[in-house]
Amino acid sequence: MAKLLIKNGTFITMNSDDCVLQGSMAVEEDRITYLGSGVPDGEFDTVIDGTYRVYMPGFVNTHGHAAMSLLRGYADDLALQVWLEEKMWPNEAKFTAEDVKWGTMLSAAEMLLSGTTAFVDMYDHMDQVAAVVEQSGMRGCLTRGMIGLVPPDVQRAKLDEATAFVSAWHGKADGRITTMMSPHAPYTCPPEFIANIVQAAHELDQPIHIHMSETAREVAQNVEQYGERPVRHLEKLGVFSRPCLVAHGVHLTDEEISILAKYDVRVSHNPGSNLKLASGIARVPELLQAGVLVSLGTDSSASNNNLDLLEEVRLAALLHKGTTGDPTAVPAMEALRMGTVYGARSIWLDDVGTLEIGQKADFISINPERLHYYPNTNFVSHLVYAANSSDVMDVWVNGKQLVKDRELLTLDEEQIKHQFTACYERVIGK
Amino acid sequence: MAKLLIKNGTFITMNSDDCVLQGSMAVEEDRITYLGSGVPDGEFDTVIDGTYRVYMPGFVNTHGHAAMSLLRGYADDLALQVWLEEKMWPNEAKFTAEDVKWGTMLSAAEMLLSGTTAFVDMYDHMDQVAAVVEQSGMRGCLTRGMIGLVPPDVQRAKLDEATAFVSAWHGKADGRITTMMSPHAPYTCPPEFIANIVQAAHELDQPIHIHMSETAREVAQNVEQYGERPVRHLEKLGVFSRPCLVAHGVHLTDEEISILAKYDVRVSHNPGSNLKLASGIARVPELLQAGVLVSLGTDSSASNNNLDLLEEVRLAALLHKGTTGDPTAVPAMEALRMGTVYGARSIWLDDVGTLEIGQKADFISINPERLHYYPNTNFVSHLVYAANSSDVMDVWVNGKQLVKDRELLTLDEEQIKHQFTACYERVIGK
Repeated sequence: MAKLLIKNGTFITMNSDDCVLQGSMAVEEDRITYLGSGVPDGEFDTVIDGTYRVYMPGFVNTHGHAAMSLLRGYADDLALQVWLEEKMWPNEAKFTAEDVKWGTMLSAAEMLLSGTTAFVDMYDHMDQVAAVVEQSGMRGCLTRGMIGLVPPDVQRAKLDEATAFVSAWHGKADGRITTMMSPHAPYTCPPEFIANIVQAAHELDQPIHIHMSETAREVAQNVEQYGERPVRHLEKLGVFSRPCLVAHGVHLTDEEISILAKYDVRVSHNPGSNLKLASGIARVPELLQAGVLVSLGTDSSASNNNLDLLEEVRLAALLHKGTTGDPTAVPAMEALRMGTVYGARSIWLDDVGTLEIGQKADFISINPERLHYYPNTNFVSHLVYAANSSDVMDVWVNGKQLVKDRELLTLDEEQIKHQFTACYERVIGK
Repeated sequence: MAKLLIKNGTFITMNSDDCVLQGSMAVEEDRITYLGSGVPDGEFDTVIDGTYRVYMPGFVNTHGHAAMSLLRGYADDLALQVWLEEKMWPNEAKFTAEDVKWGTMLSAAEMLLSGTTAFVDMYDHMDQVAAVVEQSGMRGCLTRGMIGLVPPDVQRAKLDEATAFVSAWHGKADGRITTMMSPHAPYTCPPEFIANIVQAAHELDQPIHIHMSETAREVAQNVEQYGERPVRHLEKLGVFSRPCLVAHGVHLTDEEISILAKYDVRVSHNPGSNLKLASGIARVPELLQAGVLVSLGTDSSASNNNLDLLEEVRLAALLHKGTTGDPTAVPAMEALRMGTVYGARSIWLDDVGTLEIGQKADFISINPERLHYYPNTNFVSHLVYAANSSDVMDVWVNGKQLVKDRELLTLDEEQIKHQFTACYERVIGK
């Protein structure tokens, strides 16, 4: 670690509208100690000439299930409930800890190579996921997802597991791992179970992450079963009395948007997954207008089908223009914020997501020499509307370099492919 | 050229639903002479081990204005008419032949490196565009776009130029160049001018390419000005009495879709550009259902903002699911056909767009060793939903290799960047 200097670089700091800076950046241990148009004094262990690179904060992926890469391409072009109940759950039930390990490893490698430095993961066998985060050097906000359609003793066991996971891993890996508590969704958890989880979250001082209002069917079912739409239902169960990040939030009324804003509930917008599963298109301009913090998630690569956050940035910038008829909806800079700083704030990280003195050194470099960056003028526009995640050349998290010239430094790509394929063949068959 | 053999490859032939073949492919001069699970007899000048590659037909980009790469990122997040009239046209008016040459060169290089082997171009200074196609080795279907909001003598001069271009270039560059006649759009061409162009197209036996029904505003204006929506208007002017490719076709009624189907009019769907300019979302499932041939175009990189046809394939597969609520809308294979074989048929090429014995050897190789192709199972799904255009490793057109391991063989990338930047600085300023 020690002291790093990058000079002659172009820096997209993400801390204001006019945030492209030519100059240099210094990093000491895990933090940015200089960023400006000059060159700081002092001795440096590593000096990088950034002339042919653009630097920016890493992407933050605020919703996913990394191990499900094992099911990428297994079942496409199906409705969410059929896909979930007939194709995903029966296969996921076969996943062992080993499968979760290697599925997550492959996803971590894929995320790093596409510039993601922090990710949310809601799954099972979370000790394995935490170990991958620890080894990879990434930042992870991790949570044991609990589906409650099981007998009370199994619910209890899941809650104990979730609690133990928080106790074991919150704040670990030099603080790179944080945790949350996760009832899977209103439609997969009886109200009492959700209330129990909220209670535990209070006791553990943990935020809550939950799928909510992803499909119209789920909303209708909620009304039928509980007499209310999901937002009111979760409000009454106390979910929003904790800091809360909801995934999807596709089907929301104006009143529901107001409730989310009132409680400062964060929404992880997953445009790729929502389109692919035909769930619909979230009301992102209205959410942003109401002051709701909206970030971006890929969801799993079984419904996306990759973990490329830059694609979600582009979709967020394009989609809402096309569906609202307003070409100024979600401008380039706002989409890029959703993928970086808003993502960090959505998982309660205040010192990640921008390049500024005092912030954690989580950043990536981009190669602007590729043809789609010409003319070499408006880098924010080019990143959002023209770039490609394989333009990401280097990745640093917490001041440590994890990717160098597109080579992984902390993970063994060949070993991951080999072990992943073995898991796939065992679970799904050749 | 001579004889090429690729063995141990995976081939996505695109000629049936079940079109993934393990085996080998031979190419003699410009055509495929063998494709099967065995290995053909004979001597070969070049033998390639395709073990770590997936081969498929090259992408066909059926609508664009290549030289406008000079205006990439110049004006984003604006409505089409403002963007066009205030930002594009005044700058385009300054373009010299030299600017069109280098703008098109950069675009050709960008298209080749993202796997596009054939493209439609509607612009001015078309001799320059044709020369780029000739040099690059790509296939181009080229047309001098005519805006008719000018005095009659200027209209006449444009029509003469378009006619001369057809005479000079149709069938040239070993048949890689074909041509069309293009009234720019119903809202930019008085009816008599369109009728004159149709007459010329009959005399020259040329197809017609035209922008149509891109925005709701344009449709309303057509009704106001001519008492009819664009489809009926163009039908009466005889446009559909010629083979015809329309770009966009976003705002169409059921009746208009029937008319397009009746005349076998082809529609170039440009989802990225239509979203970005907030023009709307074309009724692609209904068009396909009605039997209309729908292909994909990027439009220019001033409204996209790249020329990555794989992105358009993905958007076509995702967007219509999300907006119709039907997760089976535009399945992966159909989207891939839109980007390849339907593209070729849309520009009246019958021997391009699939890998089959007797077809022209226009194909690309993909690197399936990148992480988003794992598990290495469903390549059609992975290409459409997970791939990245920088996975394209090699490109061949007409049996000649144009890209090898991501290096351009017919174009000089450094020279292009240098000349392009000089043009940009002259037109727009530093």
